[in-house]
Amino acid sequence: MSLLAKRWKELAEVKAELAGRDWFLATSGNLSIKVTDDPLTFLVTASGKDKRKQTDEDFLLVDASGNPVEKTQLKPSAETLLHVEIYKRTNAGCSLHVHTVDNNVISELYGDDGEVVFSHQEIIKAFGIWEEDAAIRIPIIRNYAHIPTLAQEFAKHVNGDAGAVLIRNHGITVWGKDAFEAKKFLEAWEFLFSYHVKLLLLKGAKAFA
Amino acid sequence: MSLLAKRWKELAEVKAELAGRDWFLATSGNLSIKVTDDPLTFLVTASGKDKRKQTDEDFLLVDASGNPVEKTQLKPSAETLLHVEIYKRTNAGCSLHVHTVDNNVISELYGDDGEVVFSHQEIIKAFGIWEEDAAIRIPIIRNYAHIPTLAQEFAKHVNGDAGAVLIRNHGITVWGKDAFEAKKFLEAWEFLFSYHVKLLLLKGAKAFA
Amino acid sequence: MSLLAKRWKELAEVKAELAGRDWFLATSGNLSIKVTDDPLTFLVTASGKDKRKQTDEDFLLVDASGNPVEKTQLKPSAETLLHVEIYKRTNAGCSLHVHTVDNNVISELYGDDGEVVFSHQEIIKAFGIWEEDAAIRIPIIRNYAHIPTLAQEFAKHVNGDAGAVLIRNHGITVWGKDAFEAKKFLEAWEFLFSYHVKLLLLKGAKAFA
Amino acid sequence: MSLLAKRWKELAEVKAELAGRDWFLATSGNLSIKVTDDPLTFLVTASGKDKRKQTDEDFLLVDASGNPVEKTQLKPSAETLLHVEIYKRTNAGCSLHVHTVDNNVISELYGDDGEVVFSHQEIIKAFGIWEEDAAIRIPIIRNYAHIPTLAQEFAKHVNGDAGAVLIRNHGITVWGKDAFEAKKFLEAWEFLFSYHVKLLLLKGAKAFA
Repeated sequence: MSLLAKRWKELAEVKAELAGRDWFLATSGNLSIKVTDDPLTFLVTASGKDKRKQTDEDFLLVDASGNPVEKTQLKPSAETLLHVEIYKRTNAGCSLHVHTVDNNVISELYGDDGEVVFSHQEIIKAFGIWEEDAAIRIPIIRNYAHIPTLAQEFAKHVNGDAGAVLIRNHGITVWGKDAFEAKKFLEAWEFLFSYHVKLLLLKGAKAFA
Repeated sequence: MSLLAKRWKELAEVKAELAGRDWFLATSGNLSIKVTDDPLTFLVTASGKDKRKQTDEDFLLVDASGNPVEKTQLKPSAETLLHVEIYKRTNAGCSLHVHTVDNNVISELYGDDGEVVFSHQEIIKAFGIWEEDAAIRIPIIRNYAHIPTLAQEFAKHVNGDAGAVLIRNHGITVWGKDAFEAKKFLEAWEFLFSYHVKLLLLKGAKAFA
Repeated sequence: MSLLAKRWKELAEVKAELAGRDWFLATSGNLSIKVTDDPLTFLVTASGKDKRKQTDEDFLLVDASGNPVEKTQLKPSAETLLHVEIYKRTNAGCSLHVHTVDNNVISELYGDDGEVVFSHQEIIKAFGIWEEDAAIRIPIIRNYAHIPTLAQEFAKHVNGDAGAVLIRNHGITVWGKDAFEAKKFLEAWEFLFSYHVKLLLLKGAKAFA
Repeated sequence: MSLLAKRWKELAEVKAELAGRDWFLATSGNLSIKVTDDPLTFLVTASGKDKRKQTDEDFLLVDASGNPVEKTQLKPSAETLLHVEIYKRTNAGCSLHVHTVDNNVISELYGDDGEVVFSHQEIIKAFGIWEEDAAIRIPIIRNYAHIPTLAQEFAKHVNGDAGAVLIRNHGITVWGKDAFEAKKFLEAWEFLFSYHVKLLLLKGAKAFA
């Protein structure tokens, strides 16, 4: 299998699994995987597709500017520029962006703070942090409708080969060295969000119980 | 494949996917897809079927009055008249009606207001609205048991090729140019409902946390 | 296909679907379907099986006393006597008993009242009630550990060919003329429970929003 | 089929089912099944795998110290020592450890108490307790990052052939005589946790309704 075909398959498997959880409702979300470093090329989801379906037009290859490498009628995802920032600034190999109800509510609850910090949770070890009282922080940025502006704001928080950013009332973008790691980080964040949401509700309730 | 077979397949695929989410509990919900414009004919779900199953009797072809085009023992969905209003008044090609817990609770919470408005949410772009501070509104109508009266009330809000109406303590009806678009709109609305429900619960809880 | 094989298949299909929703956690729940009227025989789930699996030992045929018709090492479900009461007192053809989180919380919230009443909900039409302001009531009985006593208490509420009873902190038992109808009723009840649970939470929250 | 192959298959089936419920997010969780008693050997999940996938490297055979029986590049789960404690101290044949949102929130809500007790719930019969007013208790221990310390603390609560321990903000470990029983207990606990979480929220809400 060619490198391109191998990366396509990896990204398609992640897409199918996340689609099964309904993390791409209403054609939302976008995914990418790096194919070559020099020159930089990566596969990114084509715009406006139903990600529950698996087709030969799900992804297209784009260059360091986010433009298609070959002539195609497919349009790269509207937010391809965010993926460009990740691959230009880090050694990451895969980036996943999904809208979920819980990541949206966390982004709104803590949006004015510009970040949210989680601690005392075993799942934090998924990020390779092994201290007992470890804390992990995710920045929350404003959801600029103008994608170049959003990408610029986003880029300020892209300073490691692994990372994540919440865009307010929009979703999370996670990146890691490959599809396996990016999905692992994404699942850890979503667990933290769901746990935190439920605990906030319950700590209130238990006080009155 | 004939046009009829093509439309049947499209509608069957949407039905199977929504059934997988349990959006048709207790034989609730109904779906339709336009087949011809002149004369108007459309496929609509047969009444009283378990939509988790896929059979040759899931849909039947009806005319501009909602009556079967051919002699059949199948009965069109009891709410076929609502679909008639959509195809008579707009260029829509598909209409989906589902009961979900979250669309029912939203319809009850805001039922007295006659509408609910959502804003500052990325998923609103699924409706083709790209402004940063966009808002989107869905009317909420009374759930008349008399279907012709319900259809008449419903028709007042059918004034575009794409749209949606909430029927109080009943469900949502969404329409769009084809099955792809109608499903996209439906998923966007359900995301907004679920997000809003959870945020209402949490904003209360966070105040006390 | 023999009548027995036909009924087995119908019950197996319902079991598989409900198991897919995790409505039989921890080997809970039991199902039955009538095979013959005179003498009364019905298939009932064997005790202690994992209902996510499909095997030739999932059900066994029992008589009007709930005893196996043929010599078998299988034991009928511990609660077979409740199914006996249904088939002895009504013309029902199928009975489904499941534990869900929402039916348990409703049974606890309203347990002291001995019943809960729902109204103004479209899904009530699934019970064949078409009035606009229809209400529907489900009795809630105490969860006696002694099954003959439980069956006796249960029997007081078995007075129609279709019906349902909540057993407090235990689950719901629903019956109807056949597997299709019993499943339809069950889904309608579970929708009502989930809707009501969420609305109770939200009505409180909205007041403070 | 060899005994090893039989046990592998049993554990793989449980893994696949729990993975389908997303109980192993972010490579969390670990499972084991005993193969021989003398000397003690058991299959345990290899560290760092995506448990949604089924491969020939999902499990490896370890000895009474938790070390691989044969030379392998696979690493046993980081928490293998907890499984060692179970097999050394009891006749259990299978142990399951999963992170869920609800078991984590329960562990946090009652963590300071060191335990949580549930009563008046039918599902308690899954533990083989048949009294009408039965109560069941699960200890909650601190989540030491140092695994030998965690295993030592855990071992204090391993005093029966069936049992369960909650590790605070980490997850539940359940053990039983075989894969069937361990999964049954796990499902019963998760039902109790989800029920209790929802009831806490609702009892507060109903008071204000």
